[in-house]
Amino acid sequence: MTDDILLRSDADGIATLTMNDPGTLNALSDEMLAALSRQLSDIAASRLRAVILRAEGKAFSAGHHLGQMQRMRQAEDGGRAAFADLFDRCTAVMAQIRDLPQPVIAQVHAMATAAGCQLVATCDLAIASREARFGVNGVDVGLFCSTPMVALSRNVSRKRAFEMLSTGRFLTAEEAEQAGLINRAVPPDRLAEETRALAERVASKLPAAVRIGKGAFYAQLDRPLDAAYELTRDAIVENLMDTGTDEGMQAFLEKRPPRWT
Amino acid sequence: MTDDILLRSDADGIATLTMNDPGTLNALSDEMLAALSRQLSDIAASRLRAVILRAEGKAFSAGHHLGQMQRMRQAEDGGRAAFADLFDRCTAVMAQIRDLPQPVIAQVHAMATAAGCQLVATCDLAIASREARFGVNGVDVGLFCSTPMVALSRNVSRKRAFEMLSTGRFLTAEEAEQAGLINRAVPPDRLAEETRALAERVASKLPAAVRIGKGAFYAQLDRPLDAAYELTRDAIVENLMDTGTDEGMQAFLEKRPPRWT
Amino acid sequence: MTDDILLRSDADGIATLTMNDPGTLNALSDEMLAALSRQLSDIAASRLRAVILRAEGKAFSAGHHLGQMQRMRQAEDGGRAAFADLFDRCTAVMAQIRDLPQPVIAQVHAMATAAGCQLVATCDLAIASREARFGVNGVDVGLFCSTPMVALSRNVSRKRAFEMLSTGRFLTAEEAEQAGLINRAVPPDRLAEETRALAERVASKLPAAVRIGKGAFYAQLDRPLDAAYELTRDAIVENLMDTGTDEGMQAFLEKRPPRWT
Repeated sequence: MTDDILLRSDADGIATLTMNDPGTLNALSDEMLAALSRQLSDIAASRLRAVILRAEGKAFSAGHHLGQMQRMRQAEDGGRAAFADLFDRCTAVMAQIRDLPQPVIAQVHAMATAAGCQLVATCDLAIASREARFGVNGVDVGLFCSTPMVALSRNVSRKRAFEMLSTGRFLTAEEAEQAGLINRAVPPDRLAEETRALAERVASKLPAAVRIGKGAFYAQLDRPLDAAYELTRDAIVENLMDTGTDEGMQAFLEKRPPRWT
Repeated sequence: MTDDILLRSDADGIATLTMNDPGTLNALSDEMLAALSRQLSDIAASRLRAVILRAEGKAFSAGHHLGQMQRMRQAEDGGRAAFADLFDRCTAVMAQIRDLPQPVIAQVHAMATAAGCQLVATCDLAIASREARFGVNGVDVGLFCSTPMVALSRNVSRKRAFEMLSTGRFLTAEEAEQAGLINRAVPPDRLAEETRALAERVASKLPAAVRIGKGAFYAQLDRPLDAAYELTRDAIVENLMDTGTDEGMQAFLEKRPPRWT
Repeated sequence: MTDDILLRSDADGIATLTMNDPGTLNALSDEMLAALSRQLSDIAASRLRAVILRAEGKAFSAGHHLGQMQRMRQAEDGGRAAFADLFDRCTAVMAQIRDLPQPVIAQVHAMATAAGCQLVATCDLAIASREARFGVNGVDVGLFCSTPMVALSRNVSRKRAFEMLSTGRFLTAEEAEQAGLINRAVPPDRLAEETRALAERVASKLPAAVRIGKGAFYAQLDRPLDAAYELTRDAIVENLMDTGTDEGMQAFLEKRPPRWT
């Protein structure tokens, strides 16, 4: 279950994915995107209950692999088709995270840049070390972070997102927390423990409730209010039909813990 | 004009609705939803200018009535039709608040949970005691708060909403203020006074302006930018055609108070 | 290149527009809207790289010109057609700012009211003096700020926007920063310098990247997630096809500054 550049270990219902390509600052290379896609597909079909996404080395992720991209320019069309394909593959990985039945928690120990920042914005939850930094600074090399901004601008306010995008300015972890990009900034030596505690808390809930709720969460965000309510009515009714939910509600009324197996 | 579980008193153009079912922690039971719907319909047709929604007892509202819901499971379809009907009635009350000509201010003295938190998120304005707490913790009994999240996720950032929904974590009143869920947290002994002052300020404005503006506010939020501007252009022109607005603008130019009757 | 009520000076690729009608508190009069439209059209066609929008006098802008509006009421239709036309012209200026290839930075030294506040909300970036104040207080004269709220409610949270709109309450510059309406509040004597530094930073980037990115930023905000990604994939591929971007990426890989002419 392990790729060289993407490690995985499962314990207590929680999968931990570790980006392990420090030489490229965990770039979202062709290989990394393929490895992420493979592992996410595998986890989607499993009975695991939560995912932690972390990284080894000096950065969480520096985004796309500029060396690979420059080589794509040698094609007859100057790279146009290969670039479009690259961003489609990257977007597909982001969509896999959103569509995964399990919540995905980013554990950010260091710099998250460009598509690396997009990855944090895309995860359902994020805990960061106070030493982490967040930027969408492609504009510094002449490449505006247009795809990362889709996720970023759905997490932070317009003026802040536009400043990051147009100036390359980085946010500290504290600023990222205030801006809404992460849930919490914690001391570096507490990062693994706090992320684990959050994952365990999520993993302790009824999986059907979390799966139905996560799916409905993103589906309703993209809809007008009345359509959002129609969609979530169907979701909550489906959730209520689960035998585990019947047991959870009954246990609450009887003031006892639910017997979920 | 009073239901046992929902008290109402009108004074100085302000209706105060008090949820008064402390034994259920002001659950949104069938009876409470019906009483809210009745009073909101009545207020919509009145010349009142603002509404305060408050509660008696140890909680603001604990959300849906789990006991009533469990009894619905005895139907042949396991409760499916009754549940769908329940959430449709609940959504209809939320829509009544949004569609009411008068602004509705939540005065939150204590815990607001699940659909009780949704009620706060749905009100136009909210003042809370520093002792209030806010949660969408249905997931703790196996029922993800999928309908409350429609209102919640339109008030607070994605990461914070998802954490509340997937872990059951509560926000303090200060956190709720920072997150955007309420306008202000105030000391408990200032709650009634501050809410009253806000209601009086709203009630002192030209009713036609407030009615047209509130309607346009929610309508434009659900539209792309250009369509939002078309809609609000029509709203502001309608507002300008009101004789009270003519008087208000003229009074401003003549540096005198408007003569609004 | 200068209108009496709207001054313009260009230096180092940065256009500075100065609203210069202190007698009306820089009202968005027919003349001011026409002057803004003319200058923005001219700048759009230029090789300038950033725009600063500032003002002279006691206010940044007090919004629409109530005196001119009251005179419109003398038409046979009570002003209805003239009002609709006025708001269409105002919306067109706001759209010009959004559609301008160059980022526009509001430099707010004092009060920004009603459509003046809308102007700040519409700019891509905003720096304000700590002495600035922000309000959408048309409701005080019986005219709810329905068009300004389109821009406002896309910058700040619902509850805060609705409070400003329905009560006329002003935000301090610090509150405006926290709310997301501006990027930063700075001491009055640092305002010009900080705004200039921000404009210079934006102006130092590759113009094609900024133009493509800014266009995609607003286009994707109005779309559901999947459509937003399709749109930005096309934008980033277009950006990659620019020779300046090829040079910027290559320079990065060779650890040298880009040779952008």
